[in-house]
Amino acid sequence: MKRIYKRRSKKVGTPPGTLIHIGEEQLAPTKVDMVVYNKDQVTFSQPDLSTDAACIVPPKDSSVLWVNMDGVSELPPLKKLGECFGIHPLVLEDIVDTAQRPKAEEYSNYLFVLLKMLKPGDDGVKGEQVSIILGDNWVLTFQEGLSKDIFNPIKERLENSQLRLRSQGADYLVYGLMDIIVDNYFLVLDSVADNIEILEEELMDSPTPKTLAAIYNQKRELLFLHKSIWPLREVISSLYRQEAPQIQGSTIVYLRDLYDHTIQVIETVETLRDMLSGMLDIYLSSVSNKMNGIMKVLTIIATIFMPITFIVGLYGMNFKNMPELEWPWGYPAVLILMLVIVIAMVIFFRRKDWI
Amino acid sequence: MKRIYKRRSKKVGTPPGTLIHIGEEQLAPTKVDMVVYNKDQVTFSQPDLSTDAACIVPPKDSSVLWVNMDGVSELPPLKKLGECFGIHPLVLEDIVDTAQRPKAEEYSNYLFVLLKMLKPGDDGVKGEQVSIILGDNWVLTFQEGLSKDIFNPIKERLENSQLRLRSQGADYLVYGLMDIIVDNYFLVLDSVADNIEILEEELMDSPTPKTLAAIYNQKRELLFLHKSIWPLREVISSLYRQEAPQIQGSTIVYLRDLYDHTIQVIETVETLRDMLSGMLDIYLSSVSNKMNGIMKVLTIIATIFMPITFIVGLYGMNFKNMPELEWPWGYPAVLILMLVIVIAMVIFFRRKDWI
Amino acid sequence: MKRIYKRRSKKVGTPPGTLIHIGEEQLAPTKVDMVVYNKDQVTFSQPDLSTDAACIVPPKDSSVLWVNMDGVSELPPLKKLGECFGIHPLVLEDIVDTAQRPKAEEYSNYLFVLLKMLKPGDDGVKGEQVSIILGDNWVLTFQEGLSKDIFNPIKERLENSQLRLRSQGADYLVYGLMDIIVDNYFLVLDSVADNIEILEEELMDSPTPKTLAAIYNQKRELLFLHKSIWPLREVISSLYRQEAPQIQGSTIVYLRDLYDHTIQVIETVETLRDMLSGMLDIYLSSVSNKMNGIMKVLTIIATIFMPITFIVGLYGMNFKNMPELEWPWGYPAVLILMLVIVIAMVIFFRRKDWI
Amino acid sequence: MKRIYKRRSKKVGTPPGTLIHIGEEQLAPTKVDMVVYNKDQVTFSQPDLSTDAACIVPPKDSSVLWVNMDGVSELPPLKKLGECFGIHPLVLEDIVDTAQRPKAEEYSNYLFVLLKMLKPGDDGVKGEQVSIILGDNWVLTFQEGLSKDIFNPIKERLENSQLRLRSQGADYLVYGLMDIIVDNYFLVLDSVADNIEILEEELMDSPTPKTLAAIYNQKRELLFLHKSIWPLREVISSLYRQEAPQIQGSTIVYLRDLYDHTIQVIETVETLRDMLSGMLDIYLSSVSNKMNGIMKVLTIIATIFMPITFIVGLYGMNFKNMPELEWPWGYPAVLILMLVIVIAMVIFFRRKDWI
Amino acid sequence: MKRIYKRRSKKVGTPPGTLIHIGEEQLAPTKVDMVVYNKDQVTFSQPDLSTDAACIVPPKDSSVLWVNMDGVSELPPLKKLGECFGIHPLVLEDIVDTAQRPKAEEYSNYLFVLLKMLKPGDDGVKGEQVSIILGDNWVLTFQEGLSKDIFNPIKERLENSQLRLRSQGADYLVYGLMDIIVDNYFLVLDSVADNIEILEEELMDSPTPKTLAAIYNQKRELLFLHKSIWPLREVISSLYRQEAPQIQGSTIVYLRDLYDHTIQVIETVETLRDMLSGMLDIYLSSVSNKMNGIMKVLTIIATIFMPITFIVGLYGMNFKNMPELEWPWGYPAVLILMLVIVIAMVIFFRRKDWI
Repeated sequence: MKRIYKRRSKKVGTPPGTLIHIGEEQLAPTKVDMVVYNKDQVTFSQPDLSTDAACIVPPKDSSVLWVNMDGVSELPPLKKLGECFGIHPLVLEDIVDTAQRPKAEEYSNYLFVLLKMLKPGDDGVKGEQVSIILGDNWVLTFQEGLSKDIFNPIKERLENSQLRLRSQGADYLVYGLMDIIVDNYFLVLDSVADNIEILEEELMDSPTPKTLAAIYNQKRELLFLHKSIWPLREVISSLYRQEAPQIQGSTIVYLRDLYDHTIQVIETVETLRDMLSGMLDIYLSSVSNKMNGIMKVLTIIATIFMPITFIVGLYGMNFKNMPELEWPWGYPAVLILMLVIVIAMVIFFRRKDWI
Repeated sequence: MKRIYKRRSKKVGTPPGTLIHIGEEQLAPTKVDMVVYNKDQVTFSQPDLSTDAACIVPPKDSSVLWVNMDGVSELPPLKKLGECFGIHPLVLEDIVDTAQRPKAEEYSNYLFVLLKMLKPGDDGVKGEQVSIILGDNWVLTFQEGLSKDIFNPIKERLENSQLRLRSQGADYLVYGLMDIIVDNYFLVLDSVADNIEILEEELMDSPTPKTLAAIYNQKRELLFLHKSIWPLREVISSLYRQEAPQIQGSTIVYLRDLYDHTIQVIETVETLRDMLSGMLDIYLSSVSNKMNGIMKVLTIIATIFMPITFIVGLYGMNFKNMPELEWPWGYPAVLILMLVIVIAMVIFFRRKDWI
Repeated sequence: MKRIYKRRSKKVGTPPGTLIHIGEEQLAPTKVDMVVYNKDQVTFSQPDLSTDAACIVPPKDSSVLWVNMDGVSELPPLKKLGECFGIHPLVLEDIVDTAQRPKAEEYSNYLFVLLKMLKPGDDGVKGEQVSIILGDNWVLTFQEGLSKDIFNPIKERLENSQLRLRSQGADYLVYGLMDIIVDNYFLVLDSVADNIEILEEELMDSPTPKTLAAIYNQKRELLFLHKSIWPLREVISSLYRQEAPQIQGSTIVYLRDLYDHTIQVIETVETLRDMLSGMLDIYLSSVSNKMNGIMKVLTIIATIFMPITFIVGLYGMNFKNMPELEWPWGYPAVLILMLVIVIAMVIFFRRKDWI
Repeated sequence: MKRIYKRRSKKVGTPPGTLIHIGEEQLAPTKVDMVVYNKDQVTFSQPDLSTDAACIVPPKDSSVLWVNMDGVSELPPLKKLGECFGIHPLVLEDIVDTAQRPKAEEYSNYLFVLLKMLKPGDDGVKGEQVSIILGDNWVLTFQEGLSKDIFNPIKERLENSQLRLRSQGADYLVYGLMDIIVDNYFLVLDSVADNIEILEEELMDSPTPKTLAAIYNQKRELLFLHKSIWPLREVISSLYRQEAPQIQGSTIVYLRDLYDHTIQVIETVETLRDMLSGMLDIYLSSVSNKMNGIMKVLTIIATIFMPITFIVGLYGMNFKNMPELEWPWGYPAVLILMLVIVIAMVIFFRRKDWI
Repeated sequence: MKRIYKRRSKKVGTPPGTLIHIGEEQLAPTKVDMVVYNKDQVTFSQPDLSTDAACIVPPKDSSVLWVNMDGVSELPPLKKLGECFGIHPLVLEDIVDTAQRPKAEEYSNYLFVLLKMLKPGDDGVKGEQVSIILGDNWVLTFQEGLSKDIFNPIKERLENSQLRLRSQGADYLVYGLMDIIVDNYFLVLDSVADNIEILEEELMDSPTPKTLAAIYNQKRELLFLHKSIWPLREVISSLYRQEAPQIQGSTIVYLRDLYDHTIQVIETVETLRDMLSGMLDIYLSSVSNKMNGIMKVLTIIATIFMPITFIVGLYGMNFKNMPELEWPWGYPAVLILMLVIVIAMVIFFRRKDWI
């Protein structure tokens, strides 16, 4: 339930723009790191976000500044960052409320994008909220910080001056960040598809009530995926269709590619949901078939034994005048009669295709 | 049923604009209070709305006037207010008809918004209709008045001159009122989600027919929520997209945020409905599984006892010529034979995975 | 079936514009009455629509002429009226074909609106087709005439010169007529909701196959309502959105209100249909539960009596050498053994929660 | 299956525009007839479409030329006609491929409309493809030719100079042809509705597995209707909304009426499908109810006879020391005891509402 | 599962534009062939795509160049081709990733279309990805290469100078290629429809659990078809609606025809899915009917034998004082009594329609 619906009661009644962290409490402290790069050089550092420190200033030249915050439950550094870059209080409120749905919003001097990072875990898919703010030549990112930094591959790529990433603007960096998130969805789909494949085999071999519970769990898992990924369609298409000054023409084609990937993910989720529905039908009907099998056994047993039990009861009666009892061949005759009845029954069931 | 459909027969055949109260009769009398505020000061008062009193006049300066009426079953004060502010008779008709669906309508000199306030109660969610009229620098609000005044937090915030609310116009006040209503939806969702979580555990442990009734009740509850909240999507988006002169540019971003919250609520309602459907499937199949279990017990019992009961019947026959009966080891031999049959049966059932 | 689908075979193969009455044969003859009114005076009369009578002419001044025809199976007066007011043959064809779906059509000099009047009856909802033609300052209405004149309240209101109706144009009269039709839908919904409420209680207490048939009947009833009301949404919205010269600006706000009512009716129909679907699930699962109950009784009986019947059979065998039979305490011991078995069984079933 | 899906393998791999007849082989040879008419006169004739004959030329004056081909499996006359009137090879390909879906296409100098003619037959609805090409003052029609000429009523109407048809252009003729096709849909609906009504009664009285098969057949029938009629909505609305030069203003209102009829047909198909779904639910639940009835009988029998069979077994035991056996009133006492047990059982079942 | 969802894990974390082959490993090496043709001549050749070979250059005159690559798992020739024709890295990435969904993308100097080729195979439908790039007078095609070259019919047609194909531009060649792919869909549908027809008969005659598994398999098959074909609708409509300079006016009408075929394929897939759903209902209900049959047999047996078994037990009691036992006609009387009971039972079951 936790992953599908997060309780939000504590926010009720507060004025808009109040920062209240909704989500799992974080164990590690908030980590902040900063990169400044251009085609020629790249600098990594840890900025000071204490309340009275100087503000981080975006570079004057064409370099790109990227500040990445890992963990959103500590409010002061977040507020500091918000003040320095002129971020609207409602945006900050959304960043710390990890129950948000994915969205993209245009503000006067920056774009705000909110996404869900998903990862396969031991007990189901884990979701983490990632917020991205794109200014002219600066990018702020906020991770919920439950697992290790997911943007590490990007940082590694930034160190390689040969790659396209170094020579492009802040918008291409944002594309790269979103691309890595969407790529991870495929990992999640791989793991769900594996589970469904196992379930499918189980279903064909020997379904048990546990199979049903597993189908139900996968359904919930896909409901969670659907909820996290579906709005992304609109988010990314709004990014590459709107004419935001922060996004350059050369990046549009990459965003379109990202959009394609998103559609692929969404369609796969729907396909898997369709398959699960089909599997539920199969399960229910296999339960019916089992019941049929049990009923058959019961009916065969009853049908064979009831007549012959009646016969032995018949000759257990204590009437004085029962001539059969006196016959020397009475007993064997009755035994043969009963054998004939049993054989007739077996033939009857063969005809009915029950044995 | 009452919450899902309110009887409306008494309105049929009356001319349009006729004020007829549809809804639960109210116990407490209608209460009216009035606030006038600007950045510098705030005044609370109780206006006189008797028919021959002078009209309340909106302040000439940039102050904001807010009249809040708690209870809509007393018609005279409502009519008086309508006359003073030039409210269309159809709007007044809608205010007293608490079976309305949420809507927003633009009139020449004011905006009319109708919403449903929802609160978790002991026997399900309680709904209450709230109407808001936004003029240039005045706001009228009407509550159904079944529970305590829900706008109290706003009044408290108005007393604090530091808050954004005091320095903004009437449109921001309306946003604040709607925000508090939407925030309360999260409380309702929290309570429904709690119920569903309990049901889910019950379902996995030991479902009873009561579980089914509870699932059905939650379904109705969500149907009621859906009905009350779904139209809100259109209401709020129409507010922030239309260019009504009553709404200033700086408020738009807040309305967009409110819209986002509404979408979140709606999606959660749909997700919970999806989950309930899945739970119904699980319930039905657990009933089938139970039946299977019962059938198995019956079949095992019958299959074990029918053959051996036949045997004891066999040797209860009164034939003269039954040599086995005379054998000294006949009785023990039959006992052993029956034991062998029982063991064979048990092995058979083990193989069939029934025991 | 009659209400859901009317046979239309007799129209096949006739040229377009041929007047053929489709619908129930009418017992009473067609009645026509006429009203001319303005702010100052109102005149009721019975016009002569025989073929060679003079045409009715719309008043030259700002008065409004309303001709109402009750019954559409007599074709000559209808044709006469059509000729006098220049009505297109296709419109006349639609008026007499009571299997039409609601629609609104704009012609060069008039608007044509076709609606379904619904009324709760003893054996389900009764539908009646109503056609309205709105010219510059004249209105023609045609009722199927199966029940008493539904426009009586309007006629009564016309006699009261104080009411808004008298001082407004023909478009406001049309609004009034449509409003009375939509208001009647609420009566129908009240009656359907009553039935569903009764069914719901029956379902919870003691569902029988009759309950199922009743659910099915209500489903058909709502299918009929859906079919009759759903197109109205489009009809009314097309009326208040199009810029027909026959509709004045001041009437638009009333049409918008009417539209709201229609949406409310449609949503209620959908909600009630949703509820019925849920009730069907409950019914089916209560049947399953009943079966479970029966199976339990059978299994308990069989499981208790089969072992002890076996035991009494055992000691009914006629072996010579059965030492137990000779023991003086053999009989009581067997009785006690059987009692122990029965008690063990009862405990077993308690544990399985069957008793 | 044949009606729902026609095999198309033989077309695969041929260049576009290749004429290959898809459909049932025709027994009768292709028949071609031709009409030229205007307000004053009408001429029927049989044109020569052999390859080396002269082309048919549309009349120079305002007369209308209509060529109707009955049967599309003979390709040479079709090709000849196509050449003379400058028909695109793709259009000819569509005409002979009777597995097409309804569509309307605009070409530079003509409109191409493809429809399905439906007729109730003994073993279900029969479909036939009809293609119509509308030029300036000429019309070509192609019928699949499986049943008798469906356009006969039009030809008869053409002979009557009083009718509107004679004085209008080619577009009105096309309207007339389409109108007769749509009118025939009502015949089909009448027949399907009759079948469903019979099924409904059968379902309420005594459903058998045959009822289920019949429901399934009607479902397939409606699937076929849906497939044939649904695209028509778009076809006709595209005709009366586009501004094709071939269609005059005065015909638009007739096309709108035709569109209305189509919508009515489509809605009825959907309503009937809804009803069939409901009937399936009823069937399944009546099967469950029957099973319940059988189980009850079994349980009542077992529950009554098991205890008393046990008792008679008890006194069939051969213990030496069974004092009851010696009592003179033992036998009657046991008989009375068993009677009491049976009566108790009957009372129990009455309480459970089983008898 | 493989056909419905291809694992994509290995792509995660790589920079965009990285070429990674996703799909089945190919056995045969990549084959490349090249055609240059115009109205007068046609030349087939095998180009050299080694890294240091000269680039293939599109002809300067109006000839059309077509390069077809069979197999996409060898990356160097693909990269070489991409460089020579200025193909965007994202396009190359899509070509080698055979898990893509169908799409059409417009780039500055070429159009990129990605489709799925489908073929009926022994164990279900086989899918293969085909990518097409259309430049001014050149076409590149890429086949996954799992089966034999599917474009052979086109190559054969190119050798015939009489055909339209030779005299048209590159856009008509692309149409021809897509047309052959869509035509093959009909083959697939033919084979699926055959399977469903067989299933339908099996279902009516004697459904077994294998029938259910087969229905489930066909459902998955159609899910796969749906997934592969559905996006094509948008792909082709975007091609013929957009005003890409690569597509000439005369080809538009052919693309519209292709679009029609696609719609037909999609509708057939949906129709077949609808039929399968109906078949599942029939299957489930036939299982219920079978169970009913089994229950009837059991109940008849039990109901007949329980009473008479009771009677023989009765007269097996050992009471001293049982006068019936002494009567000379006691035994025959009991036999007759039991016969009467059996006959009564049989009549009872006849009335209940069980025998």
